Amino acid sequence: MNIYQTRLQILRHMMQKEDIDIYLILSTDPHLNEYIPDFYKIRVFMSGFNGSAGILVITQNQAFLWTDGRYFLQAQKELEGSTITLQKQDQNNHFLKWLQTLNFKQKLTLATDFTLLPLSLKQELNSQNNICLKHKDFISSFWQNRPLLSKNPIYEHEENFAYPTRLEKINLVREKMKKIKAQNHLISSLDDIAWITNLRGNDIEFNPVFYAYLFLNQNEILLFTDLEKIDFNLKNKLAKDFITLKNYEEIHTHLKTLKNTNLLIDETKMTALLMQDIDQSVEILNHTLPSTILKACKNSKEIANIEQAMLQDGIALCYFFAWLEEKLNKKEKLSELDIDIKITEFRARNPLYISNSFATIAGFNANSALPHYKATQSNFSYIEGNGLLLIDSGAQYKNGTTDITRVVPVGKVTAEQIKDYTLVLKAHINIASAVFPKDIAMPLLDSITRSILWKEQLDFAHGTGHGVGYFLNVHEGPQSLSYSATINDKNKAKIGMITSIEPGIYRNNQWGIRLENLVLNCKIENPKETNFGEFLYFKTLTLCPFERNCIDVNLLDEKEKQWLNSYHQEVYQKLSPYLNTKVSRWLKRKTQEI
Amino acid sequence: MNIYQTRLQILRHMMQKEDIDIYLILSTDPHLNEYIPDFYKIRVFMSGFNGSAGILVITQNQAFLWTDGRYFLQAQKELEGSTITLQKQDQNNHFLKWLQTLNFKQKLTLATDFTLLPLSLKQELNSQNNICLKHKDFISSFWQNRPLLSKNPIYEHEENFAYPTRLEKINLVREKMKKIKAQNHLISSLDDIAWITNLRGNDIEFNPVFYAYLFLNQNEILLFTDLEKIDFNLKNKLAKDFITLKNYEEIHTHLKTLKNTNLLIDETKMTALLMQDIDQSVEILNHTLPSTILKACKNSKEIANIEQAMLQDGIALCYFFAWLEEKLNKKEKLSELDIDIKITEFRARNPLYISNSFATIAGFNANSALPHYKATQSNFSYIEGNGLLLIDSGAQYKNGTTDITRVVPVGKVTAEQIKDYTLVLKAHINIASAVFPKDIAMPLLDSITRSILWKEQLDFAHGTGHGVGYFLNVHEGPQSLSYSATINDKNKAKIGMITSIEPGIYRNNQWGIRLENLVLNCKIENPKETNFGEFLYFKTLTLCPFERNCIDVNLLDEKEKQWLNSYHQEVYQKLSPYLNTKVSRWLKRKTQEI
Repeated sequence: MNIYQTRLQILRHMMQKEDIDIYLILSTDPHLNEYIPDFYKIRVFMSGFNGSAGILVITQNQAFLWTDGRYFLQAQKELEGSTITLQKQDQNNHFLKWLQTLNFKQKLTLATDFTLLPLSLKQELNSQNNICLKHKDFISSFWQNRPLLSKNPIYEHEENFAYPTRLEKINLVREKMKKIKAQNHLISSLDDIAWITNLRGNDIEFNPVFYAYLFLNQNEILLFTDLEKIDFNLKNKLAKDFITLKNYEEIHTHLKTLKNTNLLIDETKMTALLMQDIDQSVEILNHTLPSTILKACKNSKEIANIEQAMLQDGIALCYFFAWLEEKLNKKEKLSELDIDIKITEFRARNPLYISNSFATIAGFNANSALPHYKATQSNFSYIEGNGLLLIDSGAQYKNGTTDITRVVPVGKVTAEQIKDYTLVLKAHINIASAVFPKDIAMPLLDSITRSILWKEQLDFAHGTGHGVGYFLNVHEGPQSLSYSATINDKNKAKIGMITSIEPGIYRNNQWGIRLENLVLNCKIENPKETNFGEFLYFKTLTLCPFERNCIDVNLLDEKEKQWLNSYHQEVYQKLSPYLNTKVSRWLKRKTQEI
Repeated sequence: MNIYQTRLQILRHMMQKEDIDIYLILSTDPHLNEYIPDFYKIRVFMSGFNGSAGILVITQNQAFLWTDGRYFLQAQKELEGSTITLQKQDQNNHFLKWLQTLNFKQKLTLATDFTLLPLSLKQELNSQNNICLKHKDFISSFWQNRPLLSKNPIYEHEENFAYPTRLEKINLVREKMKKIKAQNHLISSLDDIAWITNLRGNDIEFNPVFYAYLFLNQNEILLFTDLEKIDFNLKNKLAKDFITLKNYEEIHTHLKTLKNTNLLIDETKMTALLMQDIDQSVEILNHTLPSTILKACKNSKEIANIEQAMLQDGIALCYFFAWLEEKLNKKEKLSELDIDIKITEFRARNPLYISNSFATIAGFNANSALPHYKATQSNFSYIEGNGLLLIDSGAQYKNGTTDITRVVPVGKVTAEQIKDYTLVLKAHINIASAVFPKDIAMPLLDSITRSILWKEQLDFAHGTGHGVGYFLNVHEGPQSLSYSATINDKNKAKIGMITSIEPGIYRNNQWGIRLENLVLNCKIENPKETNFGEFLYFKTLTLCPFERNCIDVNLLDEKEKQWLNSYHQEVYQKLSPYLNTKVSRWLKRKTQEI
């Protein structure tokens, strides 16, 4: 019996004792983070499946894992011997639909850990009339040697970089609260808390956040977190800013004290357990968090800092790509793993570098066709022969977060590869040079990107772009450039939002191309027309050349050539003063007029 | 006291007697049609305001009319002396918001005629907790000399044009009913009924429909309508097709007989009264009507017929525009009203012509800047001097419905006008030549059109396009090319849908430009790529040249020139064989290569 079978057996024994028919194991943490630390990887512990998304469903005689197309192959492999059946999730196969097929005469009791249950999912489960829902955490009791939560210190995002001050930010939030007559406000999303408090942490890989809850009203500022992570000096500083520190777990008792008042929350960021702590007499004001919009619209000092970070990132990238080209020319043996090591090394020379902003994707040929590929010690390719190498990487600097994808030719590239590269570049330029109405829902702009590829009957199965934080999460809401995102008030185009632009073409088992820059929503300063509304444009922030050798100039029109030449000129002018002679010469060559 | 004051007085007296605090008068009919006959123009009767949209709200001491930006000026004028206050409807001013401000200690009683109350509005009114809602038709009792409903005959859409047969269409609907286990099905939208039954009528101007309800289950087909409109022969034919005829009013008693069964309806097409007829024991299956999707996706025979209609329409347009050019060259005195008369005259020469498909819009200079302008006997302009004449017109033929907009130069046109014309043409070409994924929500494609105008900080305040019926309503759902339309399953791009493409630029008090063709969603027959999903393209159906003299060729890129030249070549090749020498020569000139 393999280890996962044993674990299922223990769980089933506990389910039986408590009359639980179905136990549900999710892939979340109590703050519904995109990335989670090992401590919360309960689904991995119980199934062996390591993908980022998946729902494990266990009954007395069955066990299913629902996951999406990205992970079918991986899950098949990792579930072997576990007795867990893979369910390939799509529009027609979802565990909620499966639940509906269970037509029992008596209600079934379904249990799950409410500390990890998104409120929205709880509501969906409650709406199923064959289900009786219970809160149960069975796993903690038998997970021996469970990884610990981090004890990494919480630290200040220094004044030079964090603007305005935390008290000013809290005042901005309080003003928004007043507008909607909110007396109390609970913030559970970690990047909002980090942004408001100008604090950072290291509890989750790649995201400089720390586990906490923030509770505000017009008199109090309560920060619930692991107090051992805050040193004496910082405690004093926070006290001077009228911030009261509380233990992380005390949020529950605190919420229970609220009576006959109201509470501003964003229900999409709440777990079921947290909601249960709130008394019936408390009126819930469900809104997008004021801090989410404030945080998304970068202010002028943040933008100036980000431009500095982009400059430093661009310098590191030049050193890296020049190094890579030399190695490839010399036919030195390189693997996909070397790319991550080396690009990180160049970035880490910057004293403001903190970490990467996500796991570097370096995929050669067939691997580059997998948008979420990650080379591992047990599964990687050497970069040799002919083809394309896709590198998607980024860093957390104290003055900004970066995210860039480039594709490098290795050996000889084919005409088809050059055509694909050029088409992706055209799609990139088409959206990067777009002008659009202020306040339009940004997903509506996605067809401007894709129309170029659609003409060639090509498309890509991910969004064109995501919001990016300021020394915070590389995936930050509320805006999105994905046409499959919901169209609502949240994703309106506002001045100061930073979004990625990253169209691609992926040919299964052959090659993949993705070209990504970060762009800033800017106001047109001297409008030609004034009777047709206010318009914004994208200012490209990322500084790094595209591959002239992969571009078929005949496929570019005049405006596209202009865009490319003017971008390359800017890259050269901004970066070359900081490069050594050799790399500066390399950049000169890369940015020659086309 | 003017006549509207008197009518308000009578109404207020009746309200008082029955303890009604607020009376609501809407602009709908019992089938929620876009256009309504005079019989249902209660709001016009009570207020004197003639616009197509408006809500009249009457209390004992106040009367308000809410209408939108298109009608502010007109309403101001028409309401003069009525004591009714104009409320300029926008995001912040809506009668539902006004209702919420009425914070009475006791509930207010609001009455309206439930035969005309959309179900969705009833639900919104019911959700207001300061309102008690009642069904009352006060107006009928004192509206003397009320216009009558039409007695125009219902007639068959002949076999040559109507395909498949009504029984085959009913079978298609019944198959969809089986799929969702619907036992009964009520259809109240008139174009769906006309399409399913292959019948047409003349109850509403421009729309060849007749007032009726259709009720289906697997055994019965019940058509509720004014039986006097159906002659003996047609009655026999319908009887042979197993269609049972019932009086229009009997729908109410029939619905009341349903018990312990289910009923498929589209709630968005239902009125409050109709819903009240349905017993509690009847399970409501709320779906887009199966016929709405079937009707939207034109079949190959319908398409072949439509192409014939387009050819005939194109011929009429050539004769008209050649005539117009000659008159303008000779400086003959023409008014906007003459345009409607003459263009209708040319179209009516076609034996399949039935009526226009909407009120012709012919606007010169400042008038062309009003997208919904309609010249009247008391308010029109002469076409003289220099400028632009916008003509938006269309016809109902037995083999198709047309809708086209062109802009004609009068005298000398300015460089600015030529630039605007060229930009609108570029926007038109950009979407007309687009390729897009099958099943994408069509509103997501709108930014492909607008991106061209946005770059110049221009935009237009209406949708890029609407669905078009087959010898049916010129505005037909479910698809839409407007980015403000809701993104949902209903407006997915399907093969066979016909949509208008009509971008514009409107400069207040100066000129307006709109260029409109109808296009057909077609499948790419020999795809170059097969791994990226199925793609569709738009095939242009409308045949009529654009104005070469209004185009700045320097603003067109190669692909745009190609599109225009190839379109003009097609127009010439298809139409010239049917034109006399003079008009054929005119068309040759108009379609010369650019």
